[in-house]
Amino acid sequence: MSMPRYKITLEYDGAGFVGWQRQENGLGVQQALEEAIERFCGQTATTFAAGRTDSGVHALGQVVHFDLERAHPPDTVRDALNFHLKPVAAAVLTAEGVGEEFHARLSARQRAYRYRIVNRAAAPTLERGRVWWLPAALDAGAMSEAARLLVGRHDFTTFRASGCQAKSPIKTLDTLEVKRAGDEIRIKARARSFLHHQMRNFVGTLERVGAGKWTADDVRAALEARDRAAGGPTAPACGLYLVEVVY
Amino acid sequence: MSMPRYKITLEYDGAGFVGWQRQENGLGVQQALEEAIERFCGQTATTFAAGRTDSGVHALGQVVHFDLERAHPPDTVRDALNFHLKPVAAAVLTAEGVGEEFHARLSARQRAYRYRIVNRAAAPTLERGRVWWLPAALDAGAMSEAARLLVGRHDFTTFRASGCQAKSPIKTLDTLEVKRAGDEIRIKARARSFLHHQMRNFVGTLERVGAGKWTADDVRAALEARDRAAGGPTAPACGLYLVEVVY
Repeated sequence: MSMPRYKITLEYDGAGFVGWQRQENGLGVQQALEEAIERFCGQTATTFAAGRTDSGVHALGQVVHFDLERAHPPDTVRDALNFHLKPVAAAVLTAEGVGEEFHARLSARQRAYRYRIVNRAAAPTLERGRVWWLPAALDAGAMSEAARLLVGRHDFTTFRASGCQAKSPIKTLDTLEVKRAGDEIRIKARARSFLHHQMRNFVGTLERVGAGKWTADDVRAALEARDRAAGGPTAPACGLYLVEVVY
Repeated sequence: MSMPRYKITLEYDGAGFVGWQRQENGLGVQQALEEAIERFCGQTATTFAAGRTDSGVHALGQVVHFDLERAHPPDTVRDALNFHLKPVAAAVLTAEGVGEEFHARLSARQRAYRYRIVNRAAAPTLERGRVWWLPAALDAGAMSEAARLLVGRHDFTTFRASGCQAKSPIKTLDTLEVKRAGDEIRIKARARSFLHHQMRNFVGTLERVGAGKWTADDVRAALEARDRAAGGPTAPACGLYLVEVVY
């Protein structure tokens, strides 16, 4: 007999965690969640996330699944986990029962990330630790043009962290959009899956374009080089949000 | 000969301050700013703000004026003050030179406030300390209807803190709008000036309506009672933002 499986959506402030995964050097979101499950029902559960976010990366809609030994109403699971998560900046937005064929990572059809840049002379106050602050004026239009060159099916080796464990660097990027709203530049991306640091390496490269250091042609050449050294730097984790996972 | 006068717009996270005004019991934004001015040009200046925000209230566009002994380019004033403000969560967004007839408080023609409620089962994580969290479902439509009754010229004694120092409780409220966007309910208000706690007392009263405890008629009766005891409770400071001051 299979155990009841739960799918939850999770929001967290990445600043308080060493990332999703359990680590020796600090609190992972996974550990915080598994401890909350244990306090809720006295059971050691293993949790599986759609995206293994890095240290400092935020989530507005991370999706996680786990099995419990006995069934509980989904709202009870949500409220009980939130009660036990209270000391940390992570919260269960929704919980639902799912079949045993559901897997948060393997069943995901699309992931959506957002990156936030604050582009103004003054450092952020309320958004400190939640955005990348760049005081020099960026040309969001030029960034948007260059972003379009990256959309589609490509070998993204240039934008892949050296430690990336994906089998292939070939991925299909569904969308990559750059939009300015006042002092903020938002970069939104959607794909079935992303390579390690892919989004932050996109942003670090697009920043070079926005600053007028690189042209769109330079971005094209970097992509075609299939060499991490040809790409721009890795943008800081604090501006990145896992927004949504589509199944 | 008059001293050069500067007008600045200021953003701050209210959580780090005891409010705008200098206090014995902690750091006021005013004190932080005046110390930054002193470190910048070795001068003791007095600063005047458009709105004397309470402890915990945030600002996206507070306006302040002060006089310096000698003239500096406005961007130098902005950047130097930001350099010296760096340890605290306050930043100068813009600075400009103004004539000696300009007064941040007395010249203001309109102030805009925003109040943010997060209305969902899960506590806020990224927005912790920046919103009022209310887990029980609120009817934003009913709140919006009731808000309309408060717009216009009224005796707002019901919504006035006991310590309020305004000469008259009669004010003209230009707008009071309630809008839901997903899990968030935003309440926006504009008026030439506000009584002490007026916005937070509006929100505490509208929350009663959203929760189904009060009707719009109850709000009308509370307004007409001209009695603070007839109004709803005072909503927490952390959800309130001084957004804009119009001259």
